[in-house]
Amino acid sequence: MNKIGIIGMGHVGSDLAYTLCRENTVDTLVLIDKDDDKVYAETLELEDAMASTSSQVAIIQQDYQALSDAALIVLAVGSTDLEKEDRISELTQNAQSAKEVVPKAVASGFSGIFLVISNPCDVMTMLVQQYSGFPKHKVMGTGTTLDTNRLKRIVGKIAGVSSQSVEGFVLGEHGESQFVAWSTVRIAGEQLSELPAFAAQDLPVLKEQVRLGGWEIFTRKTWTSYGIASVASRLIQTILKDERRIFPVSAYDESKQIYAGYPHIIGRQGVIEALPLTLTQDEINEYELSAEKIRRTFLTVT
Amino acid sequence: MNKIGIIGMGHVGSDLAYTLCRENTVDTLVLIDKDDDKVYAETLELEDAMASTSSQVAIIQQDYQALSDAALIVLAVGSTDLEKEDRISELTQNAQSAKEVVPKAVASGFSGIFLVISNPCDVMTMLVQQYSGFPKHKVMGTGTTLDTNRLKRIVGKIAGVSSQSVEGFVLGEHGESQFVAWSTVRIAGEQLSELPAFAAQDLPVLKEQVRLGGWEIFTRKTWTSYGIASVASRLIQTILKDERRIFPVSAYDESKQIYAGYPHIIGRQGVIEALPLTLTQDEINEYELSAEKIRRTFLTVT
Amino acid sequence: MNKIGIIGMGHVGSDLAYTLCRENTVDTLVLIDKDDDKVYAETLELEDAMASTSSQVAIIQQDYQALSDAALIVLAVGSTDLEKEDRISELTQNAQSAKEVVPKAVASGFSGIFLVISNPCDVMTMLVQQYSGFPKHKVMGTGTTLDTNRLKRIVGKIAGVSSQSVEGFVLGEHGESQFVAWSTVRIAGEQLSELPAFAAQDLPVLKEQVRLGGWEIFTRKTWTSYGIASVASRLIQTILKDERRIFPVSAYDESKQIYAGYPHIIGRQGVIEALPLTLTQDEINEYELSAEKIRRTFLTVT
Amino acid sequence: MNKIGIIGMGHVGSDLAYTLCRENTVDTLVLIDKDDDKVYAETLELEDAMASTSSQVAIIQQDYQALSDAALIVLAVGSTDLEKEDRISELTQNAQSAKEVVPKAVASGFSGIFLVISNPCDVMTMLVQQYSGFPKHKVMGTGTTLDTNRLKRIVGKIAGVSSQSVEGFVLGEHGESQFVAWSTVRIAGEQLSELPAFAAQDLPVLKEQVRLGGWEIFTRKTWTSYGIASVASRLIQTILKDERRIFPVSAYDESKQIYAGYPHIIGRQGVIEALPLTLTQDEINEYELSAEKIRRTFLTVT
Repeated sequence: MNKIGIIGMGHVGSDLAYTLCRENTVDTLVLIDKDDDKVYAETLELEDAMASTSSQVAIIQQDYQALSDAALIVLAVGSTDLEKEDRISELTQNAQSAKEVVPKAVASGFSGIFLVISNPCDVMTMLVQQYSGFPKHKVMGTGTTLDTNRLKRIVGKIAGVSSQSVEGFVLGEHGESQFVAWSTVRIAGEQLSELPAFAAQDLPVLKEQVRLGGWEIFTRKTWTSYGIASVASRLIQTILKDERRIFPVSAYDESKQIYAGYPHIIGRQGVIEALPLTLTQDEINEYELSAEKIRRTFLTVT
Repeated sequence: MNKIGIIGMGHVGSDLAYTLCRENTVDTLVLIDKDDDKVYAETLELEDAMASTSSQVAIIQQDYQALSDAALIVLAVGSTDLEKEDRISELTQNAQSAKEVVPKAVASGFSGIFLVISNPCDVMTMLVQQYSGFPKHKVMGTGTTLDTNRLKRIVGKIAGVSSQSVEGFVLGEHGESQFVAWSTVRIAGEQLSELPAFAAQDLPVLKEQVRLGGWEIFTRKTWTSYGIASVASRLIQTILKDERRIFPVSAYDESKQIYAGYPHIIGRQGVIEALPLTLTQDEINEYELSAEKIRRTFLTVT
Repeated sequence: MNKIGIIGMGHVGSDLAYTLCRENTVDTLVLIDKDDDKVYAETLELEDAMASTSSQVAIIQQDYQALSDAALIVLAVGSTDLEKEDRISELTQNAQSAKEVVPKAVASGFSGIFLVISNPCDVMTMLVQQYSGFPKHKVMGTGTTLDTNRLKRIVGKIAGVSSQSVEGFVLGEHGESQFVAWSTVRIAGEQLSELPAFAAQDLPVLKEQVRLGGWEIFTRKTWTSYGIASVASRLIQTILKDERRIFPVSAYDESKQIYAGYPHIIGRQGVIEALPLTLTQDEINEYELSAEKIRRTFLTVT
Repeated sequence: MNKIGIIGMGHVGSDLAYTLCRENTVDTLVLIDKDDDKVYAETLELEDAMASTSSQVAIIQQDYQALSDAALIVLAVGSTDLEKEDRISELTQNAQSAKEVVPKAVASGFSGIFLVISNPCDVMTMLVQQYSGFPKHKVMGTGTTLDTNRLKRIVGKIAGVSSQSVEGFVLGEHGESQFVAWSTVRIAGEQLSELPAFAAQDLPVLKEQVRLGGWEIFTRKTWTSYGIASVASRLIQTILKDERRIFPVSAYDESKQIYAGYPHIIGRQGVIEALPLTLTQDEINEYELSAEKIRRTFLTVT
């Protein structure tokens, strides 16, 4: 069975549920939130929506026990404030939520993958691993996958190609200390420095556009959701179908002993393997600073 | 070109844009709202989302002139309050919005189809036809298509079949005076009275569940959007691809001289033909009452 | 896991595998044929094709043991001749194939659903039930679902509506003795006799067009496959996702003690329930004749 | 309108039509072949198939005039023999077919894009450009896109990642003289020489596997089609939706004055721009040899 749980039915959790209901990826959704009415209303909405599609997803409301045979649980608590510029600020509240809900999920007998969307994403992913006691490769966060999408959008526009034809990674914290690993950014295998369109571009300006991508949206819309819902939906398909695609999820870095955004092969078993990137010394330094930032934040909450 | 305009980027307009961006139905979206920031933020969100998909939709912001060669414009103004129980209450404000935006769309040279989501849907559809001066078959509202989805959801659950395997129609006003035309409700061609599962069911109770479907959601979530976004997305595919499917859209009823929800064949030319339903006398009476209600509401605003 | 086996990789089995590989319905395909080279070539082709899509299906070749945890096995042996006008003629050969392969599948520990495409479909479905010893509801054939599609195509063209907006069923044998149950054929709930477009139509002529639909294709193309592959793909989605849709599959008729095409609710458990159609006396007679034809054919082979 | 013509309804043309009918990419297909019966049979098959889907494509048979407003024409003549190892051998026959059909398409007033599948692909693409008199960027062949898929399949298996996560290009002739540009082959931006999984691999052996990919299939199945149909379907979506993705299509190389497989940005206008690859000197030499091979073959037929 391709059963998925979503805990936290704010904007992100709901938009993710909607995305999954319009596709053929999952069979069954278990929707959980502290607000019964919200879950009931979204269930009716999703079922109304599906009558206009050719797909069908069974929806179970507010039932932790139904998670026992789920393949994956998405933690999306606190999502209404998902994109505060300093994503650290909402940590205390979301950490508390995770401490409540993760043990309930584990108590059901659940033994699948945890996918963490809640912010600050890297620290929350560490906490979910701790609260669950799961093997580290079975817990991951969306990490810098959305930031990488923003990079691809910005670079693709300058190059005049689809964002889907841009390669490369934003690494580190899904937050202020993230950075674009420019040495990895390529179009058709060529680095941007080889492409005429980028001759006059100021890379630090582009990098700042990427980092502020969520903030730009948040200040205008008061939340973000379609971007992260699409990222999560893609990761869910990759996990359920064991696709072994590569994403910069927040995964455990043994050497730094934290979770941070870095490209890994993803499949049904969760995080399968880190890719051996050949970064520049500057990029290695930036990664270490970002890892240190995540570690310090983690310590404030434990 | 399969270019679509959406005027009004509240919850419904935005969720519809998101739905269309995840599919292959349209090439280009023109997004228009009175709030520049909202349109800018949603554009970034949608472009971020598409980097995780295999589809690609070009997005044009706040440009009425870009509607000149659009195939279809969705009017979704006022959508934040789209599901007030008495959908009439927001009429004055939405009528004013339509009066402003429809002539601008027409001035661009647009000659496609208007699809009206804004409430009260039937009256707003009539107003859009008047303000545009378009032939009546080129203007339609979503009508009772969403209410029909709710009927299919409720009946499908009782019968133990997919909502997509339930046939039948809610007719009349997308509002309080709507009614389930029970004589049209069938599963595998059989009327509910022939099906054991419905022996003990109280049809008037079911009907009330359908009518209050949006209200149930609205009171718990403070808006509805996935259901209507999915209905609109399906209609858009049907129109763009000239599929000639049948939906109870709000279409012009020559004999009653109003727009009301009734099944019609829909295609690239808009509303192609009404289906000749064999209704019971009670249903005919209910339809007339509902049509009268729409007419009276229309008169209050003109 | 959504693992599916296909036994018989002729035109139909291969086109079905291709259809499933381009969608998100299944995770894993087990492909089996008496010809190793054919399976190997199709596997390479399918994998080459998927590099151009966003979906991913793992393919296992020629391994009966891999069927142990499959959710469903499609029996498509003999499919190169799938549409001989008298589908009975290939019975001996296909029955022999089923006798060989079904016990091997069962020996793997397989306990899912058998979906039979091979012709003569109804008799082959009975044989698969016998050879497997499976409960009758866990074995079904595609039955008259493709014939029903042909009916919908022909009726939709006359009415000027999408084939997907035509309701109704062809019943009985997937073969010469099949018949259109005209009392079930409706558009928007209305019988054809109520629709102006059908006033001048000769229903027996239409019925003959439906019955000869496969023959028309077969004589020109020497095989048929896209139609039946699409029918099977739709049934597979319905079964895997427990959609509880209604299709005229070949299911066991307790009263007649044969398998024949008749509308049933389909889900993860297989054939869930027959629909209680209110047929005319003529239609009841036609069904009995068709059932008798299937029974007699079955007796020739056992 | 997203109308597409397919000229040549052999295995490849038919499988491409089937692929397009199951998706939402096109509105209308114009199917043309020298065999009326084949086109009629495939039309019935495709329409039968669509009754089981939620998509709808109008099909027009054997009508060159209907190509006047098509966005794109696929030339798939001679496709039954599409994968002879030396693809040159079928040149005379296919060149003759192109000489007959291309002027008829142009005479309709068609002014869209020609996409050539017929082999030998590069020479056929040159001929179509000559016979049509179209600007060179409005004529392209599938080139080495399928060969690149084969490369991704083989490399992905060794690396344990999805073929869709492998970057890189096969360049030159879609035929014997093609070559893998190993300097472009990357996973997550890293060259294969950096990846442990490839330490023990013999690249020339892999290259030979790629070059013989079609041959391996052809000898076992007697034709290939799913791979090339999927490549063409992806290119068609890219062109119709102006996606500006990058594919190694067969495009005009001004300096060599031939068509050959090389990565270009593709969109609604056809071939938009070549990517400036930084190849090794060996790769440059291989490309020149391959270009010379194409030129010589072209001269044999003109």
